[in-house]
Amino acid sequence: MSVSSREPGSSVGSDDPLYALVGRSIEVQRTVTERDILGFAELTGDFAPHHVDEEFAARSPYGRRIAHGVLLLGYASAASSELSAQIDQQVVSLGYDRIRFIKPVFLGDTVTVRYEVTDFEAAKRRTSARVEIKNQDGQLVAVATHLLQAPS
Amino acid sequence: MSVSSREPGSSVGSDDPLYALVGRSIEVQRTVTERDILGFAELTGDFAPHHVDEEFAARSPYGRRIAHGVLLLGYASAASSELSAQIDQQVVSLGYDRIRFIKPVFLGDTVTVRYEVTDFEAAKRRTSARVEIKNQDGQLVAVATHLLQAPS
Repeated sequence: MSVSSREPGSSVGSDDPLYALVGRSIEVQRTVTERDILGFAELTGDFAPHHVDEEFAARSPYGRRIAHGVLLLGYASAASSELSAQIDQQVVSLGYDRIRFIKPVFLGDTVTVRYEVTDFEAAKRRTSARVEIKNQDGQLVAVATHLLQAPS
Repeated sequence: MSVSSREPGSSVGSDDPLYALVGRSIEVQRTVTERDILGFAELTGDFAPHHVDEEFAARSPYGRRIAHGVLLLGYASAASSELSAQIDQQVVSLGYDRIRFIKPVFLGDTVTVRYEVTDFEAAKRRTSARVEIKNQDGQLVAVATHLLQAPS
């Protein structure tokens, strides 16, 4: 895994430490291994043949095994944890909006997850982030919106 | 894991095998073990201290370690795979809408995921399902909408 981040320019407005996340982004890069997919199947119980059965997958429209979409989402959560560790405020994942698995991710693909905090809702103490996941060819394979919140 | 499902009454309308899923539901029950959470952290890279650091978690508003929300979502995907195996049509996960992690899930909690297909969009060959996850006390801990699609 590689991690990078950048800081925003000057921030104005809220004194909430969460506000400092707005404009910050982080990238996490991961190679999706067979071990990851089999491990994810075991942990979640999702043994759909697209993911674990090479013979089945060879006859599917994809032609070979594909990663679980939710595994990719786990990488996004990892990115959010890395980024939120930069501030002195505990946060937890409130949820996701509009996750779309746009293209298949195959065993051996290397994906880059870009997580960028775009909004801060002061009253609810939550941030909203745009998640974009690309494969090694630069193709967008998944998008999502992620919400972080200060625990109450 | 325990799995149950029920069949709907008569179905009218589309000849698409996906249509047969509408009204069907399945329940999957899982105890969230420490091994699950540590395994999930390792697979995804999400080592946020809420999930893996008991000392940190003891001082957090939750008082002890909590499960990754996306791990729960993995159980929902597993439920969708179980249910969609009932029909003679390959489907894949298109994504999720409005996932909310409502209450914390702790190590040792037993959650029940209820997955019910509520809608079918014929033109796009996709189904929509309501996901509700409850803990052993019957409290709703997470909700989501899940989309399945016939691969093109």
